[in-house]
Amino acid sequence: MAGSTYGKRFTVTTWGESHGPALGAVIDGCPAGIPLNQELIQRDLDRRKPGQSPYATPRSEADQAEILSGVFQGQTTGTPIALLIRNQDQRSHDYSNLAEVFRPGHADLTYHHKYGIRDYRGGGRASGRETAARVAAGAVARQLLAELQIQITAYTYAIGPVKINPENFDPDVIHANPLVMPDAEAAAKASSYLTELKQTHNSAGGVVECVITGVPPGIGEPVFEKLDAMLAKAMFSIGGVKAVEIGSGIQAAGMTGSEHNDCYRIDSDGSIRKESNHAGGILGGISDGSPIKLRAYFKPTPSIGIQQQTVSTAGTNVELTITGRHDPIIVPRAVVVVEAMAALTLADYLLIGATAKISNLQRLFHR
Amino acid sequence: MAGSTYGKRFTVTTWGESHGPALGAVIDGCPAGIPLNQELIQRDLDRRKPGQSPYATPRSEADQAEILSGVFQGQTTGTPIALLIRNQDQRSHDYSNLAEVFRPGHADLTYHHKYGIRDYRGGGRASGRETAARVAAGAVARQLLAELQIQITAYTYAIGPVKINPENFDPDVIHANPLVMPDAEAAAKASSYLTELKQTHNSAGGVVECVITGVPPGIGEPVFEKLDAMLAKAMFSIGGVKAVEIGSGIQAAGMTGSEHNDCYRIDSDGSIRKESNHAGGILGGISDGSPIKLRAYFKPTPSIGIQQQTVSTAGTNVELTITGRHDPIIVPRAVVVVEAMAALTLADYLLIGATAKISNLQRLFHR
Amino acid sequence: MAGSTYGKRFTVTTWGESHGPALGAVIDGCPAGIPLNQELIQRDLDRRKPGQSPYATPRSEADQAEILSGVFQGQTTGTPIALLIRNQDQRSHDYSNLAEVFRPGHADLTYHHKYGIRDYRGGGRASGRETAARVAAGAVARQLLAELQIQITAYTYAIGPVKINPENFDPDVIHANPLVMPDAEAAAKASSYLTELKQTHNSAGGVVECVITGVPPGIGEPVFEKLDAMLAKAMFSIGGVKAVEIGSGIQAAGMTGSEHNDCYRIDSDGSIRKESNHAGGILGGISDGSPIKLRAYFKPTPSIGIQQQTVSTAGTNVELTITGRHDPIIVPRAVVVVEAMAALTLADYLLIGATAKISNLQRLFHR
Amino acid sequence: MAGSTYGKRFTVTTWGESHGPALGAVIDGCPAGIPLNQELIQRDLDRRKPGQSPYATPRSEADQAEILSGVFQGQTTGTPIALLIRNQDQRSHDYSNLAEVFRPGHADLTYHHKYGIRDYRGGGRASGRETAARVAAGAVARQLLAELQIQITAYTYAIGPVKINPENFDPDVIHANPLVMPDAEAAAKASSYLTELKQTHNSAGGVVECVITGVPPGIGEPVFEKLDAMLAKAMFSIGGVKAVEIGSGIQAAGMTGSEHNDCYRIDSDGSIRKESNHAGGILGGISDGSPIKLRAYFKPTPSIGIQQQTVSTAGTNVELTITGRHDPIIVPRAVVVVEAMAALTLADYLLIGATAKISNLQRLFHR
Repeated sequence: MAGSTYGKRFTVTTWGESHGPALGAVIDGCPAGIPLNQELIQRDLDRRKPGQSPYATPRSEADQAEILSGVFQGQTTGTPIALLIRNQDQRSHDYSNLAEVFRPGHADLTYHHKYGIRDYRGGGRASGRETAARVAAGAVARQLLAELQIQITAYTYAIGPVKINPENFDPDVIHANPLVMPDAEAAAKASSYLTELKQTHNSAGGVVECVITGVPPGIGEPVFEKLDAMLAKAMFSIGGVKAVEIGSGIQAAGMTGSEHNDCYRIDSDGSIRKESNHAGGILGGISDGSPIKLRAYFKPTPSIGIQQQTVSTAGTNVELTITGRHDPIIVPRAVVVVEAMAALTLADYLLIGATAKISNLQRLFHR
Repeated sequence: MAGSTYGKRFTVTTWGESHGPALGAVIDGCPAGIPLNQELIQRDLDRRKPGQSPYATPRSEADQAEILSGVFQGQTTGTPIALLIRNQDQRSHDYSNLAEVFRPGHADLTYHHKYGIRDYRGGGRASGRETAARVAAGAVARQLLAELQIQITAYTYAIGPVKINPENFDPDVIHANPLVMPDAEAAAKASSYLTELKQTHNSAGGVVECVITGVPPGIGEPVFEKLDAMLAKAMFSIGGVKAVEIGSGIQAAGMTGSEHNDCYRIDSDGSIRKESNHAGGILGGISDGSPIKLRAYFKPTPSIGIQQQTVSTAGTNVELTITGRHDPIIVPRAVVVVEAMAALTLADYLLIGATAKISNLQRLFHR
Repeated sequence: MAGSTYGKRFTVTTWGESHGPALGAVIDGCPAGIPLNQELIQRDLDRRKPGQSPYATPRSEADQAEILSGVFQGQTTGTPIALLIRNQDQRSHDYSNLAEVFRPGHADLTYHHKYGIRDYRGGGRASGRETAARVAAGAVARQLLAELQIQITAYTYAIGPVKINPENFDPDVIHANPLVMPDAEAAAKASSYLTELKQTHNSAGGVVECVITGVPPGIGEPVFEKLDAMLAKAMFSIGGVKAVEIGSGIQAAGMTGSEHNDCYRIDSDGSIRKESNHAGGILGGISDGSPIKLRAYFKPTPSIGIQQQTVSTAGTNVELTITGRHDPIIVPRAVVVVEAMAALTLADYLLIGATAKISNLQRLFHR
Repeated sequence: MAGSTYGKRFTVTTWGESHGPALGAVIDGCPAGIPLNQELIQRDLDRRKPGQSPYATPRSEADQAEILSGVFQGQTTGTPIALLIRNQDQRSHDYSNLAEVFRPGHADLTYHHKYGIRDYRGGGRASGRETAARVAAGAVARQLLAELQIQITAYTYAIGPVKINPENFDPDVIHANPLVMPDAEAAAKASSYLTELKQTHNSAGGVVECVITGVPPGIGEPVFEKLDAMLAKAMFSIGGVKAVEIGSGIQAAGMTGSEHNDCYRIDSDGSIRKESNHAGGILGGISDGSPIKLRAYFKPTPSIGIQQQTVSTAGTNVELTITGRHDPIIVPRAVVVVEAMAALTLADYLLIGATAKISNLQRLFHR
């Protein structure tokens, strides 16, 4: 593999360039017998789709996923599920002027170094458009998780300097504003901030927070494959992520042990309750049964309409002003990508974790 | 694999419990022909070794690595390199009282859920002692990297609330203080802070910063296996890490595109120079030739000498006061572990990246 | 992964059922810079295509591969290459009577046990039709190998009791007969044999031999990943293969050491020559520079037009006579599949083998 | 990984050279809760141990495996199990004359090409001695399989031209003769044959047959990772194997479909019975519940005491007569290695197969 496959047991391989004919995903290892609802795939793709807010690229894509295999009479069969999304609005001529220049903040220069050749149209494989395939695959993973009562919810936590106020948190507000923020007041402020930035052809970064509930305790692998390590990798695999926190995150470094440790108590039903959740639901790389909580920090979109200093492929200094459509903020569209990567990770780890005890195998094989 | 193997081409498998007879690592995929200096392995092990400062556990371990295979006449042969470290100071009786209680902040409860059985002596496999094997393997990876002129340097960036002042940064100071800080003034402050904490039997967290220089541009894989994603996973695989930043990190989320983008200029020698390094040396998951910079945030050591509320394996509420040796701060000892994980990651990615172009294969196979 | 991915560095994932809308392959890890000739892909697909001889199923499929990604301006870019083949002649009604019966010699029963649900139309994923995707991917691997002067040639070695006579071996005859035999006389005999079998609605097995030339010495991994072990796995992954030989094969077991050892001599040009090739080009799992030679033994096609005893999904004994199109012999069509699997294996091992020595890395990274 | 790791979920990494200080294995992924009997490990090691028959090398090795991790209070804990075997009788001086010559039939030349450096003492990593580590790991896998009522039995099927007569098959005879043959008469003939060969300093090959019973139906993966494909790879990974058959093997190629298909009938207890087992227990790469049957063909031991033509590392023709201890036949000692590789394969596939259906996950996670 060379980077485009994720997961060990629930495995997704994505392919496709921003301006090629199509992009897609192949899932191998999805258990058989899951009733697969194509509308739920479409719903997630629609959340990521461009052209839906004043702050997103106006590129027009239907982003409809065709299921080409692995489903029979409405159920998964255990064989690979191929998902195909045709690119419709390719408008390659927008990008021809970028063939001979390296855009700052993009992967142009590094792909050039690595491969010696690159599809410069819209970033090719390094484009955020690649995440459409992840979202489609993630929507399949979510249906597996739903069979096991696991839910994943992400939202915009901050845009530029505007953070949500936890006291205003309202889950119903999340999808009631184009910035996908759970705090209507913060959403309004962020909206003003973005309108201003747009006028100066600049762009903003932001933060996505993600909460995963219903994960049984005992999921995750020790040492190198800790569940939090894999979730961090999953988040960093999304273009533009520069930091990831689990639970208490960076705050943890300034706390004392007595402040940070989550104490245990026996609940009225006999189960074990944690008094706090600084751990973010994971201890020693393994789920403890509480909600898993993480944050991903995104840099501002590198495509800006302001003149920048850069160099040409021929080795000369040039000034570059990027024109054409681009997102002044990608964070709201990245919310569903964060959910997708979390879903793919959890699906994989549930499969991996199923065989940690010999008693599990004895039960499954009736021995 | 079930968590104890790291890397795809330069692969390390570690094994061993805190209070078992030994621990070790097997490296498979180390290229042949590297002169292997055992003293450099020992030097790194000594940096991690307990008992070297007033703020580290007084456990006494020689931590000598025996090389059992893969080296012939002083050179690596390309076959697996087995490294063995005997545990000497096992003192298991210290831990017998922990068999029937779940320590807050530790992996006791989650291992119990996952495996149904756990070696409770000193945390077993979840102990920080496991990292001795990583450090030994990392020291081999560093010798590979040295053959390619790549250097890795980490240091303590913060302890509790005490951060280094970049203006005081002095590389020669790093190893001149037991806290491994590159700022003597900060080190003195942190030392006072820790002395105070120790008196109250509490513990502190902190931050390690790591800089990797000499990485050729073009190293890293796209999409899911981005170099920064893998470095983040590597860092989160170290026990107690709650956040990781690459380059501008969390600051990136508050910046605008025009502030964050690193502009390019042609240098006097014709090479491409970046005017800043917010990217932290990685764009689109692939190295750009500038230094790679990251930070790992550690939570405070969970073993504290203060009474805590917890539960027993029998399902009752109990009060726990942990006695015996433990580190009030693990950050200074974790510095070399951060370096080791970075080294293992880079070694792996250099091998993986070697075949990105057909022209590379044609050169190697003289075709 | 769950079975549908092959290779570690040059990786192919296939997907698609016999009677679904399409099937395809995604190649990840193909080096950048290979000029990709789509006609060569089509040529191999045409060799596997049904309906081309009196002894093959008359199913009519154009089997045209669409390249959806990974190629830009005629060259591979190093990113995933997605290949799509639409199924055209699905005629599912032929198979509806097979929903409630397990066909002897097919995977119907075992898929039922494993997944609890199966696409019974034409064998679903277990159909030989799946190999179309392998052949398309194999044709890409062959173009990589051609850049390194490596050639792969397979042919029918035996059909039922009719073996080729090595003295009649003529490479030009291979593609001059529909049985793909390099011996015109044997081809005629086999043809008579098959005509007879066809009249009794029975089927035949056979043997494919494969020769790989131009492999540099030193390719292959030790111990578990020996090159011959992986080639054997590759061959056994083709439906119906029941035995594989490398070099001297089963004959080796009856020979003495002095008969079997291949002696070395220095050739007039100073290179090392082997006096014989019982090893089949591989020693200790690593190529020795001589031609690699292997044979794959195929069982007779299990779909026969003769009444057979079997059981229904409801658990009753039933008699089954399979009607409709099927191949009385699959061996001639399997020849190109054998070549494809050999090509995929070699491509993968060349990439893996490139980093066995530190001097290789130093050359590639100019250090 | 670079060849020394086997398995995806039940994973074994072996290390160590023939004449290094030790060799060993690390198992990662063994489920927790298996009572581990060290005597069963020793029993298998003793079956492989040299010096036990007139036809095996007189090298004297205790071959005692030390368990260094992963077992607590007699049970597996789910963490890596490290097994260490010290080399005692290294007598390196026997081999110093082989530093500058490539032995015919050995891996000397190919390791030289691949790595540029090789441990020439007794074949280093390519030595049959490496299989001691596999046998130790295989003995752990067998204890996992025993918990699931799966048994593996192998024996010598042929030595040189002497085959067992199926009519004489007596399981009690297997371990009653040093050639591990289940037919006393054949064992006596083979013994005479070997005595003769030994007098001429020559060596013999042979065949090992292996039968696996109790495998639940539905184990194995489709397409590339078929259970038979992986068993074949496992067998070919043992040094000297030149052919592998599953079920009907090479005979299949000469049979007709009506002869080869295994018909189904409903048994008196309602289960499905196969009337024959040409499939060897596997259809479409997945177990069908009948015994799995395979054969591995071994070439004659390449070390012979007869003068051979070869070349030196300096590039000159030389004559070589190998002196010192060596086995005139390795087949009887390879029987337990075949069992070990079969056990490691089955253990891995049982873990992989456990999650093929969503209903399995729902049961395990009580959802």
